[in-house]
Amino acid sequence: MRAVCVIGLGLIGGSVLRAAAAAGRPAWGATISEEDAAAAEQAGFEVLETEAALRRAASEDALIVLATPLTAVQGVLRKVAANAPHSWLTDVVSVKDPVDQEVRKQVPTAHYAGGHPMAGLSDSGFLAGSAELFSGAAWAVTIEERTSLRAWLESARLALDCGAHVVPTSAAAHDDAVARISHLPHLFAAVLAAVGADGGPLALSLAAGSFRDGTRVSASPPELVQAMTEGNKPALLDALDDALGRLGAARGSLASTGGLKSTVDSGHQSRISLEELDAEPRETSTIALGENALSRLRELGELGGRVTALTDEAATIEVPAS
Amino acid sequence: MRAVCVIGLGLIGGSVLRAAAAAGRPAWGATISEEDAAAAEQAGFEVLETEAALRRAASEDALIVLATPLTAVQGVLRKVAANAPHSWLTDVVSVKDPVDQEVRKQVPTAHYAGGHPMAGLSDSGFLAGSAELFSGAAWAVTIEERTSLRAWLESARLALDCGAHVVPTSAAAHDDAVARISHLPHLFAAVLAAVGADGGPLALSLAAGSFRDGTRVSASPPELVQAMTEGNKPALLDALDDALGRLGAARGSLASTGGLKSTVDSGHQSRISLEELDAEPRETSTIALGENALSRLRELGELGGRVTALTDEAATIEVPAS
Repeated sequence: MRAVCVIGLGLIGGSVLRAAAAAGRPAWGATISEEDAAAAEQAGFEVLETEAALRRAASEDALIVLATPLTAVQGVLRKVAANAPHSWLTDVVSVKDPVDQEVRKQVPTAHYAGGHPMAGLSDSGFLAGSAELFSGAAWAVTIEERTSLRAWLESARLALDCGAHVVPTSAAAHDDAVARISHLPHLFAAVLAAVGADGGPLALSLAAGSFRDGTRVSASPPELVQAMTEGNKPALLDALDDALGRLGAARGSLASTGGLKSTVDSGHQSRISLEELDAEPRETSTIALGENALSRLRELGELGGRVTALTDEAATIEVPAS
Repeated sequence: MRAVCVIGLGLIGGSVLRAAAAAGRPAWGATISEEDAAAAEQAGFEVLETEAALRRAASEDALIVLATPLTAVQGVLRKVAANAPHSWLTDVVSVKDPVDQEVRKQVPTAHYAGGHPMAGLSDSGFLAGSAELFSGAAWAVTIEERTSLRAWLESARLALDCGAHVVPTSAAAHDDAVARISHLPHLFAAVLAAVGADGGPLALSLAAGSFRDGTRVSASPPELVQAMTEGNKPALLDALDDALGRLGAARGSLASTGGLKSTVDSGHQSRISLEELDAEPRETSTIALGENALSRLRELGELGGRVTALTDEAATIEVPAS
């Protein structure tokens, strides 16, 4: 099994390190956080200086996993270019197009396919993670025109080894999607928390399920939320404008006719569709790993498909039946 | 113990009926829903026609609890005026000023104090309820200039018997608060669900905690969400304008400088304050139930205080220490 070198050992990176090791892979890491380094060593993992970790990755032909915030990616990629320019490379950063562009610029010779596990963020640091964090989660692995099948398979196999299901997608489609289902929800949670607090102690005293659920993710480390939302600016602006349009229409309707039926009904229908999608049976397809496999996988990913198994010859992908 | 007559036997009314009976009170109900009536009878409760239930309330000097949607309150109050005009009266409707006004108009002779238990809404109907639904929940009981101490105590004792803590508040302050911590969260959830669905199957396939939490309450029965949000129009417009202002500022900042720090930080700080408020020690005060007791209780309610016990002479109220 291919060794794994994880750069960044916070919640996500630390969990990848644990899960890769639990799957039987040789695994080591590097981090600039002394706290995370100490915690990882305490847990029995080898923690090296970043450049030493990357040189070892080059010599053992390991898969390098960038698990730093987006703001640190450029600096780490420079070190990858200097120490392991032909490596297998993936990342777990929450936006994909900016990372993809940076990889193309800094390490064009790497065998890269980007990744993004859709897993929790409310706590941070190595100690908050676990080998099971990704169990059953969706994990996007990106396919661009230039992505090689071999590079994609290396990234996808890591995701499967971590217990996740792989969602094949382009970086741009991923970024549009997560603006809607992750970054906008974080902004909404922040605004809702602030509007609630404006109501003073009485409002917080009456706050129950709807407010607690709606604001939960605003407890996440603010610097991480800021980095991921700001890093997806164009797609987040689109999602935010969609939301502002809908809220403005609701406001206008409430102020004039007093009616909120169309807002409430369309939200309800959307949520019920999500719950039905979770519950409905899925069709299993087998995609031979030949020419055009990646474009076929990406098409099925757009339809909600998730790769659940990979052999040397084929990918098993489950797609919603409807 | 004073008997309880519950008009409307859905999730909330049905749970009040069960909890009142479990506390040892004589209790009966009425509902226009054949399904809820059958379920309540199946559970061993007496279900009468509305006017018969109200006449019995008059003859047994019972506390009448209005547990219908806001849109049905006016019709039921006409029947209260005809059959039990001098009754003890409360309600569990999610807005308080419109109900208060309607009571003043239709049954000025009733001994009324409005109520609102802050308990779940995702399912509906008698069968979705339980005697424990209100356990540990906040339950607003309103205090207006004209509210008599005896009427307030009757409503508050019901809330305590149901296992809730009583938040003393004016109807107007309640309506402002719930616009922020319940009605706006329901609108946000609806808009978020719709914006996510606009992202298609890929977006829903990647949807994880932040989206699922942020849209959960949009699964609630849409006619109930519509009734409660539309019923609190002036306060909800204020809360919505506060939210639109904050979202507009975030959009402007993201589009220009690319920065979301102030939005994210203020949301984070607000959520942490809420969590600290939950965790921090509370000071217990005892308020003698004499003259001015209600205005003192309302003041402490505004500071986040909750009444946890009542005797004939005094109320015990817990107020956040800071």
